[in-house]
Amino acid sequence: MKFVTFRVGGERRVGVYDPAGSCVRPISLSSTDAEKGVGALLSRNLGSLELLSAIALDLVVLEAPFPRPTRNIFCVGKNYREHAREFSRSGFDSSAAMGEVPKEPIIFSKVPECVIAHGDDVMLDSSVSGAVDYEAELAVIIGTGGRNIKAEDAMAHVWGYTIVNDVTARDLQGRYSQWLIGKSQDTFCPMGPVAVTADEIDARDTDLRCIVNGELRQQANTRDLIFDIPTIIATISAGVTLIPGDIIATGTPAGVGIGFKPPKYLRDGDIVRVEIDGIGALENRFVERRA
Amino acid sequence: MKFVTFRVGGERRVGVYDPAGSCVRPISLSSTDAEKGVGALLSRNLGSLELLSAIALDLVVLEAPFPRPTRNIFCVGKNYREHAREFSRSGFDSSAAMGEVPKEPIIFSKVPECVIAHGDDVMLDSSVSGAVDYEAELAVIIGTGGRNIKAEDAMAHVWGYTIVNDVTARDLQGRYSQWLIGKSQDTFCPMGPVAVTADEIDARDTDLRCIVNGELRQQANTRDLIFDIPTIIATISAGVTLIPGDIIATGTPAGVGIGFKPPKYLRDGDIVRVEIDGIGALENRFVERRA
Repeated sequence: MKFVTFRVGGERRVGVYDPAGSCVRPISLSSTDAEKGVGALLSRNLGSLELLSAIALDLVVLEAPFPRPTRNIFCVGKNYREHAREFSRSGFDSSAAMGEVPKEPIIFSKVPECVIAHGDDVMLDSSVSGAVDYEAELAVIIGTGGRNIKAEDAMAHVWGYTIVNDVTARDLQGRYSQWLIGKSQDTFCPMGPVAVTADEIDARDTDLRCIVNGELRQQANTRDLIFDIPTIIATISAGVTLIPGDIIATGTPAGVGIGFKPPKYLRDGDIVRVEIDGIGALENRFVERRA
Repeated sequence: MKFVTFRVGGERRVGVYDPAGSCVRPISLSSTDAEKGVGALLSRNLGSLELLSAIALDLVVLEAPFPRPTRNIFCVGKNYREHAREFSRSGFDSSAAMGEVPKEPIIFSKVPECVIAHGDDVMLDSSVSGAVDYEAELAVIIGTGGRNIKAEDAMAHVWGYTIVNDVTARDLQGRYSQWLIGKSQDTFCPMGPVAVTADEIDARDTDLRCIVNGELRQQANTRDLIFDIPTIIATISAGVTLIPGDIIATGTPAGVGIGFKPPKYLRDGDIVRVEIDGIGALENRFVERRA
């Protein structure tokens, strides 16, 4: 099933997404539950949702499926081989001394407040960073928490998937050694608009693309992940209890701006579109802040 | 003023801490507000709190002042010169290639669910890490949020301070390059028990100590911070909007277990006490998990 979080009549709602009919069917939820977005569905039986009358898509404002995740988003760095090489050689990789291709998953986080919706603007602030880059990523949605989850059991903890653009200030990522600040800049986590349940895609074999101003920049398949989703879940949950609603961005393939010579950083007016087969497309404009 | 979050009669309460009288005076708060712990006080006029009858300390169970921070805790790495050197030479420092003493603040995070109270056990899990270490730290409590805060304005955003033990799995910190996992292990953030308002201490000149099984291991003064509190706040808030209730652990001085040869990692039954003048003492036992 495909779900979206949206606003209509000033209220947040969660609904079943029907791309063919260009509409959403709102789910009957208390307003408290609806505030959680798709998070309200994680513990529900999806077969017995009460659906209300369909609303045309152009009458609603799409939000991120998880408008405000309950804690920082987990992210995996350098998790596609060719990207690991391009980033290691960029001069901004504080982990370069540990080898071009990581031997263990690199896990960092983004603050939950940097999440924005499909169609929202990503704000560039040239007083803070002059090296903002895109990263198309498949994101895992944890449905069932757990600690010390074995890789062979990990997929039972996955509720579904969504799309994330792990926007990154490369200069800050390098300057501060740890990546939190360069990854957590305000508006730097476009997410959604669609969250799909785990049965909708084969996450071991899914194509993803990133298109900047109509130009194809990233194109890969999740079979090229260095550390697959079960390994990532096993790695994080080794000592760190995962909780329902945790979001894990699985890493980006080659073709980010820093990989070009000279680098192709994002500029005022650029439009970045991330597409993942079976989920949908996430598009955002990058806009310079005006003082 | 000094505040604590505590439980009595099965309910969470927030109160004024009176160490001389060995009691707390509960503050009249709705149960919804009390659930936020000391966070419920950040937007209140502390001069007009309604105090209820005092309760003897031994009749309450102290909690962390922020039992569950609203997002990951910000932490500063290698922020005392001698500690930066001891950690750089330990073999576990993924940032060592950038120099022993950092030129810019190193900012990472701990998940909010790893916060525990004074008196709670820190759980060791030898199946995950065999190199658990203590880090005594002064933590800043943000009261007023903001973005691009200048260092000269930063102290106006500080509501107060508390104590944090930034417990760290050194092996995981090194293995994963980014420090999130090694820092976020379950129970790895003892905090409190007291939160003091900013006027209670001069955070530029405050002594802190760490005592392990009665042996003084860390002893320093915050005047030895490489990056002072205004600089840290300016660094994080450059592009990342700080929000009320954000906790920033400011870094640990020399004397951690990894600095000894051989390293003095924490073992089953060890007791770690962190003391900060003007705030109080935070003590926790380290206990191996039984399968």
